Parts: sequence; structure tokens; C-alpha cells
Amino acid sequence: MTIKRAAVIGGGVIGAGWVARLIENGIDVAVFDPAPDAGQKLQAVLDNAERAYGRLLPKRLAKGKVARAASVGRAVTGTEWIVEAVPERLDLKRQVYAEVEAAADPAAIIASSTSGILPSELQANLAHPGRLIVGHPFNPVYLLPLVEIVAGRQTSPATVEAAGAFYASIGMKPLVVRKEIDAFIADRLLEAVWRESLWLVKDGICTTEELDDAIRYGFGLRWAQMGLFETYRIAGGEAGMRHFLAQFGPCLTWPWTKLTDVPEFNDELVDLIAGQSDAQSGHLSIRELERIRDDNLIAIMDALSRANDGLGWGAGAVLADYRRRLARHAAQADG
Amino acid sequence: MTIKRAAVIGGGVIGAGWVARLIENGIDVAVFDPAPDAGQKLQAVLDNAERAYGRLLPKRLAKGKVARAASVGRAVTGTEWIVEAVPERLDLKRQVYAEVEAAADPAAIIASSTSGILPSELQANLAHPGRLIVGHPFNPVYLLPLVEIVAGRQTSPATVEAAGAFYASIGMKPLVVRKEIDAFIADRLLEAVWRESLWLVKDGICTTEELDDAIRYGFGLRWAQMGLFETYRIAGGEAGMRHFLAQFGPCLTWPWTKLTDVPEFNDELVDLIAGQSDAQSGHLSIRELERIRDDNLIAIMDALSRANDGLGWGAGAVLADYRRRLARHAAQADG
Repeated sequence: MTIKRAAVIGGGVIGAGWVARLIENGIDVAVFDPAPDAGQKLQAVLDNAERAYGRLLPKRLAKGKVARAASVGRAVTGTEWIVEAVPERLDLKRQVYAEVEAAADPAAIIASSTSGILPSELQANLAHPGRLIVGHPFNPVYLLPLVEIVAGRQTSPATVEAAGAFYASIGMKPLVVRKEIDAFIADRLLEAVWRESLWLVKDGICTTEELDDAIRYGFGLRWAQMGLFETYRIAGGEAGMRHFLAQFGPCLTWPWTKLTDVPEFNDELVDLIAGQSDAQSGHLSIRELERIRDDNLIAIMDALSRANDGLGWGAGAVLADYRRRLARHAAQADG
Repeated sequence: MTIKRAAVIGGGVIGAGWVARLIENGIDVAVFDPAPDAGQKLQAVLDNAERAYGRLLPKRLAKGKVARAASVGRAVTGTEWIVEAVPERLDLKRQVYAEVEAAADPAAIIASSTSGILPSELQANLAHPGRLIVGHPFNPVYLLPLVEIVAGRQTSPATVEAAGAFYASIGMKPLVVRKEIDAFIADRLLEAVWRESLWLVKDGICTTEELDDAIRYGFGLRWAQMGLFETYRIAGGEAGMRHFLAQFGPCLTWPWTKLTDVPEFNDELVDLIAGQSDAQSGHLSIRELERIRDDNLIAIMDALSRANDGLGWGAGAVLADYRRRLARHAAQADG
């Protein structure tokens, strides 16, 4: 399946990130977002992405065109790939799908960006439920390679396969989640860290800045290149994973967590966190933070693309492969 | 306080990592570890560190000397800084401290590498409890900058201050934990991810490799440079942290976690995880994995040292500052 025309429904930070990634891969995109400031928000993300790709990719494809559409129906007409990136309300998403199905080619794939709603619930009322899938990306969508693919009970195997191939073709790392569960995989881990973090800040163990430092000067560096289990395998030494598990398993019964309890999410906690976050990062605008983040991500992925004796590693290997394909395209276009 | 001579009690992966970092900073180190293979294990870590520093640091200090000591008492005699890195058993640690105090200068600081035991418990029986502190590092100790400093009830403010200055002088990022709690900060977050990860693997949602991929192709890249809260601040957009909290807060009551329950850590779970880990990483020896990890960490920190318009960012800023100091030392030594 070659995608030439796509639609993106919802132009927030995730939807706009998809638009940026799609047009960078030569795909024309129609966007529908009824918000009055949607055009401005979309352009801000496209500007960030343009700046990022200029640094990340020595060879680039001719960009696809972006057009704003006046309705969901107009956006999806004549497209092969439809991204749904509207707010996380099941009723709203189902209404969008009804409008999509009224206008779209029945063979077009509908890929929801939901962070956690089950695809079986999303597809329940569709006329062609086999073509709905979750493709859950990570912000910034135009840079981070991960996309979680989650099939619902009615999703066809052909849709899963086509989605995986398509995401790989646009420089991403598709990860097929084996069973659908709320929040999938990555957001389960993030939710765990989020809950423990709320306790740590609420209990005055650390500020938001100190908590961020506990991540980015330590295990965050490890996790940019190996995950939890491979890191722990190394920690186990020559004795390997069993040795590590034997050492670390018993900790499950130690008082190392408050996770079995949930902090009350009240105004006091919001004020505490928002105030600390202002003290930590308020000297930089969101735009400045976005650009620092993007430059850092580019530097990290670029560094990892040259690691492992030039083969690349992790996100760097995905990037190296993507760059090679873009260079071949450019050579063919020239020749 | 200038440290010229240090002792490290315990030559496992953490103790040996400390030895490597200390001698790289021109400090002579006496090591005590009674294990028959301690010398070989120590040398393996020193070899890794030598390889890593050769790539990381263009200017280096004249290395300190390493000597194996026949007892705790002999190791600590005449030293100003004593690292305790023995297994996580309170009785064993207290016995080591008794031997330390029988031989060491009463002004020498005792820094425990414990991952989670409270310093107030560690120091309870000391003759000079004010000099005991927790300095919790992260593997590989010779590369990762983070060290959590935790004071017990009897730790003197002067010890906290001296430890912070010393760690910064050897290229680290000291983080003073405001209140002592089990597992401090980073390991609380890691324990949260560990628990949720055990569920995800046990429930067949993903394999260990897929879980690692969910980290390293996505939020792991973000966390190498910004932590949880700064990342979410950006996600909130111009509306900032309050907007993000308003969106994400309610999820605390959603079924996005199994953290309120703990998986049974039985043979079946150990077999499942160890088997998947073998399938994922068994084609590489631990030594090969260590070198890939180290090369990746070096590449990431080096890339971050040139980020932010050359000022460096996060771990890269710590590295850039450390390199400048080493270059000044080298210039003074030449001049």
C-alpha cells in the first residue's frame, strides 16, 4: 500500500505532529480542526518540524501539501490513510468515525491516536470495523520514532500489517501490542511514574525540578538506548537475568512505593506542582522549551545513528535506515 | 576539602565503578573485598572505564593508584573519603562501619552506596554518626553523573556540604534528597516501572524486548534530557502546567494501572522473564552489552555537551563543565 493522500482529524499537538511527519514523507494531507486558532497552532508545529528535519535529514523528499478542510467528510474524501487525533472522549471519536465512514473510501485505514481507549470500543459502531486501528504516537510526533499499534477484536490482520509497513516507511518504529489493554504499554509505565512522582512532590521529598534531575542525570540516559530489562540484565552481570531477579525480586514486598494508594488530586496539589514547575522552567517560553527539546532529541538520535560501529543503535538505527532510504529516493530522482 | 586518598569497601559493580571514577580524578584508592574473584571483577570494570574515559575526556588527570587491602581497617587507614558498597544488609553494613571507625580518621566521611536503606538506620551505632551520609550512584558509576545525597537524622550539615562539593568536583551531579525515605527518589520511580512491567509481561501484553522498545524508542529519549514534569509542561502548551494537570489529573481514577496489586514473584514469572531476556539479548555477552551501553551513553552525553548553543544541556552541561576543569588542570600542569 502506497499512501499518497491522508487526512488528519484534529490539529492539536499530536494531530499537527502527524501532519508534519506525513508531508515530510511526500504525502498530501487534508486537516480538519474547527477551532478558531487551529491554523496558527498547526503552523507552529510545522515550523518546529521544518527546523528539526533540516537538522536531522541530509536528503529529504519533496514535501506533500497541507490543506485545511471545512469538514471531516471533505478532509477524508479520496484519502487512503485517516488519522483521528481528537480529544479523548469516546462519544466524540465515534461521531468523527461516523462522519468519516459517510465520505471515505471503505478501504481507507482509520488510525486513532488515542492514548488509552480500547480499539474494540472505538470500532464498535463502524460499518467497516476491520480498518480501524490504534496508532499511538509520542510527542513530538515528528521526531520520536515509537508508535504503538493496537488492534481491536474486529480489526483485520491486513490492517495491522499495512499499518506496520506504513509507519516503518515514514521513519517510525511500530510496536504491535499483543493484547488490547487500557493505556497500552508506554502510558502504563508513565502512569506508574506519574503516580509515584505526585507522592514524592506532595510529601516534600523533592521538587518537580529535583525529580526531573533524578531522571535525566541518571536512568533517563540509560533508557534512551536500552530499556528496563536489558539494563537489568547487564546489572546482573555474567550470572545474567536470573541473578538479577533473585536479588531484586524480594524488594516487591519492601516499603519502596506508595503506589498502592493514590494521592488526592486537589487544588493544593495542583498549586504545588504548577508553582514548582514555574520556578523550574518559567524562565523559558514553551516555544523555547520545544526547540531545546527538539535539538536535544536530534542530537541524541544522531549520536545513536553513528553508534554500534556505525550500524546505529535503537532510535539511531531507525534513523540511519530512514536516511539511507531517503538518500536512495534522492539518487533515483536525480538519475 | 581536597580528597587525596579514598577507600572503597566492596568491589562489586558499584564499588568498582566508584574506584574507576575516583582514580580518574587523581585519587589513590584502597579497595577491600574478600571475594576470591574480586580482583578480576574489579579489573573488568576498570578496563571498561578506561575505554570509556579515553572516548569521553580529551584531557585527563594523572590517574590515582589502586591497591587491594587485606582488611577494612587497612583500607581506610589514612583516607579522607570512605565508600561503603557492600550488599544491602543492615547488619553487614553496620559491622563494616564498626571496623571502619576502629581504624579511620574520625574526620573521614563515610558514604554509603545503599540503594534504599535509611541513613538514620545506618548511622545508629556509629561513634561519629555526623560523618555518615548516603551517596547513591547509578550504574555505570564511572559514566552516569547522578548521585543522590541523603542525610540521616545525625548527619552534620558540614558533611552534606562537603559531599556535594566533592561529587561535583569528580564530574557528578549531586542531588540532595530533602527527607530520607526508603529507596530515595530515582529508585522509587524505577520500582514503579518495575512493578507495572512485571504485570505487563506476566499478563502477556508484551515481551521484555517489546517493553524495552516501548521505552527506548519513545519516552526514554525524552528522559535523557528533560524529566517528567518539564516534558509535561511542554505538552500543556502555552497554557502550561495547569492545563496539563487539568487534562491528565482525572486519569488517576482510570483503570490505567495494576499498581495497587503486586504480582506473585514465583518461579513461573522468573522463568518467563529470564527466558524472554535470553531471547532478546542472549546473542550478546554481558561484556559486549556493557560496551554498547557505555558507547551509547558517551555518544548521548557528548551530543548533549554541544547542545543548547554550545552551553550544553543536562548531563551534557555537567560533562562540558567537567571537561573545562580538566583542561584547566592540564594547562596548569604544563605551565
